[in-house]
Amino acid sequence: MKPDPESHPALALDETTHQRVRLGILAVLAETAECTFPALREQLELTDGNLSRHLKILEEAGLVELRKTFEDRRPRTWLKLTKQGRKSLRSQLELMEKLVARLDSTMEKE
Amino acid sequence: MKPDPESHPALALDETTHQRVRLGILAVLAETAECTFPALREQLELTDGNLSRHLKILEEAGLVELRKTFEDRRPRTWLKLTKQGRKSLRSQLELMEKLVARLDSTMEKE
Repeated sequence: MKPDPESHPALALDETTHQRVRLGILAVLAETAECTFPALREQLELTDGNLSRHLKILEEAGLVELRKTFEDRRPRTWLKLTKQGRKSLRSQLELMEKLVARLDSTMEKE
Repeated sequence: MKPDPESHPALALDETTHQRVRLGILAVLAETAECTFPALREQLELTDGNLSRHLKILEEAGLVELRKTFEDRRPRTWLKLTKQGRKSLRSQLELMEKLVARLDSTMEKE
């Protein structure tokens, strides 16, 4: 049996938002107004390097905004979703929903 | 505002099944009894090398089974989900649903 010849919804998933760590970052940031780098790192159980690497990709895509402040003379990095980041996360959630709905109906039939 | 200190559902996502191409492979295979290598490659718009690489990871994780046949003396590779593959895909779908539900309720509040 050949699969459906139409374009599969999995193809529409965007690696920028779908990648596991980046989806986690976007998800945590969607749940908070603004978050510090260490708080995000702990929430997602990441290393500094790994978080930085993924934040750079999200920042370059315009999905996340970095803001630097000083507190007691120590630098502090704050992160938040941009409008585009929120929009992209929404699209990602819609695609995930679509994929789950499609597979749920397929897998129930068995 | 600090994010929720409890473990985030995004942390539970398994890279083996969540990765975009592999999720696509599992999704297509869930929709068909068995599928040839070229049919899968076309359905997901992949190159031979990319599909092989991801199939190897899925096969080593016990999620996908390969079967080789000959048709008109030409070798043919058939692919299907294993029982474990179906189970892992189900877990992945449940996690995606959980994440979508959590974020939908957060993002609606704004």
